Amino acid sequence: MCIPSVDPLLLDNLRVNKKYSVIGILSARTGAGPQVMAMDEAVKATNTEVIDIEWPRDTKGGAGHGSLIIIGGYDPSDVRQAIQVALDNLSRTFGDVYNSPAGHLELQFTASAAGACHVAFGAPIGKAYGLICGAPAGIGVVMGDTAVKTAGVDVLSFASPSRGTSFSNEGTLHISGDSGAVRQAVMAGREVGIKLLSEMGVEPKNDFPSYIK
Amino acid sequence: MCIPSVDPLLLDNLRVNKKYSVIGILSARTGAGPQVMAMDEAVKATNTEVIDIEWPRDTKGGAGHGSLIIIGGYDPSDVRQAIQVALDNLSRTFGDVYNSPAGHLELQFTASAAGACHVAFGAPIGKAYGLICGAPAGIGVVMGDTAVKTAGVDVLSFASPSRGTSFSNEGTLHISGDSGAVRQAVMAGREVGIKLLSEMGVEPKNDFPSYIK
Amino acid sequence: MCIPSVDPLLLDNLRVNKKYSVIGILSARTGAGPQVMAMDEAVKATNTEVIDIEWPRDTKGGAGHGSLIIIGGYDPSDVRQAIQVALDNLSRTFGDVYNSPAGHLELQFTASAAGACHVAFGAPIGKAYGLICGAPAGIGVVMGDTAVKTAGVDVLSFASPSRGTSFSNEGTLHISGDSGAVRQAVMAGREVGIKLLSEMGVEPKNDFPSYIK
Repeated sequence: MCIPSVDPLLLDNLRVNKKYSVIGILSARTGAGPQVMAMDEAVKATNTEVIDIEWPRDTKGGAGHGSLIIIGGYDPSDVRQAIQVALDNLSRTFGDVYNSPAGHLELQFTASAAGACHVAFGAPIGKAYGLICGAPAGIGVVMGDTAVKTAGVDVLSFASPSRGTSFSNEGTLHISGDSGAVRQAVMAGREVGIKLLSEMGVEPKNDFPSYIK
Repeated sequence: MCIPSVDPLLLDNLRVNKKYSVIGILSARTGAGPQVMAMDEAVKATNTEVIDIEWPRDTKGGAGHGSLIIIGGYDPSDVRQAIQVALDNLSRTFGDVYNSPAGHLELQFTASAAGACHVAFGAPIGKAYGLICGAPAGIGVVMGDTAVKTAGVDVLSFASPSRGTSFSNEGTLHISGDSGAVRQAVMAGREVGIKLLSEMGVEPKNDFPSYIK
Repeated sequence: MCIPSVDPLLLDNLRVNKKYSVIGILSARTGAGPQVMAMDEAVKATNTEVIDIEWPRDTKGGAGHGSLIIIGGYDPSDVRQAIQVALDNLSRTFGDVYNSPAGHLELQFTASAAGACHVAFGAPIGKAYGLICGAPAGIGVVMGDTAVKTAGVDVLSFASPSRGTSFSNEGTLHISGDSGAVRQAVMAGREVGIKLLSEMGVEPKNDFPSYIK
């Protein structure tokens, strides 16, 4: 959605710190990481900037989050294009989201982080960024441990129910660093996560093709 | 529910700042705004006062909240009557709650806010108050933008997943001011909200007759 | 789950304040009190210590929480045994969890609290501890009022959606004191809770035999 000329009264109350006349909105009941990664591509491709990212706890969202992402720009067609680029990227960024009745896994990787990864996860812009997430939260702890042991990467943070999430039942490691190392760590986390969730009953499945190879 | 003679040990631990011997409780798994508006009528009609309002994130609640409202009084029959008035008002205040699989809308309006609207939303007592809410949160942003552009009203606040809600996937504009203007803004927000949710698949439906006309 | 040699980078980012080389993890999508009580027995029985307890709001969890409990130790076999003891205790500590479509009740009692009850609920170690919880939250308020009126106990705290929970729709009284008095208060809370939830439609049922007698 795009508001071509946003009311300044509303903008003040959204408490975004950048003053844009045009805002774009990506809002979902399920999924947060995929939307952030898709928007990361969108701001790279257009003259827009991410000005707010929030994490709803929606009851449609399994153990995880929904998302509210707001971008700002000066030209409605530019903002509309950014939203379109983000939507087009969603089937890719949902590629490494795996679900089972016992929980879920999410893996994300970009060789070069932009504004969405920076606002959402504190990723340094222009460097490789990886996300290793497991639910319930304990799965994410084990996946994160495997990931950091696999390759030399910088740990940005570990988000758990009480810290860095909206009480979601997820453990998420955010890493940065050399592109090859980040990718390798993400893939190692994925492998152990699939193994652990599979042991809890059913093998977790992704709805779209995996994109991290 | 009504506790005719509440234990002071419990009252201390509820951290309510008013000392009443009798407390009344309205507690629900789904819905928050309707309960607050219904209780607003109840305290107007009885010698009771709202002493606590909290917002659970209940998994029965779609994208939104449940509610816990505690009122205090001196006479058990008065407190019981207040709870009864609130329950009687619920079918009215649920009138402008619209649901669809994609999300929900909630609209509320009173020509004269009382203690429940004041405690819950910061509404000035005795002035008209309106609530324009959409879920997922992005819908609420667009509805709020439309509402403030429609009529000259005071914006009390905009609540989003991270600010002013319990991480619920809602965007909610709280407005105050002249009765006619507030009503007009609420109805304009409702119109665009129904249109947006309808575009996401199914037209959202209310379970009770709309009361804001 | 047990990580025999946890990566120090991960441990730093878990922000646990004790440095153990071996950590054990108990992580669940539903239930929090039962896991804490079960882990309480586990740390009594082994040379391990509870180092973190968090409360996810998982959408699988009805009105309540999930759980993430992390323990530390020096010997992998000791940590594995602690996790096993906790898992073995779960069918007991789920004994006084009662569910109905309208909400749920949870009662817990130990004659001698250990580290898990201390970290999670502030229970004094070595003294009797009791938990009286009802959902939706208003049920818990009435149960708590009954409990404190029944026997002379120390009130540790009352947790409600905004204070002491992760916005869960529960009211929970935490009590400590003489073993007989705590047990009596817990049982009185249970009685009124079952009565209240039954009046809302269906009588709530426990999946395992009650253990508080």
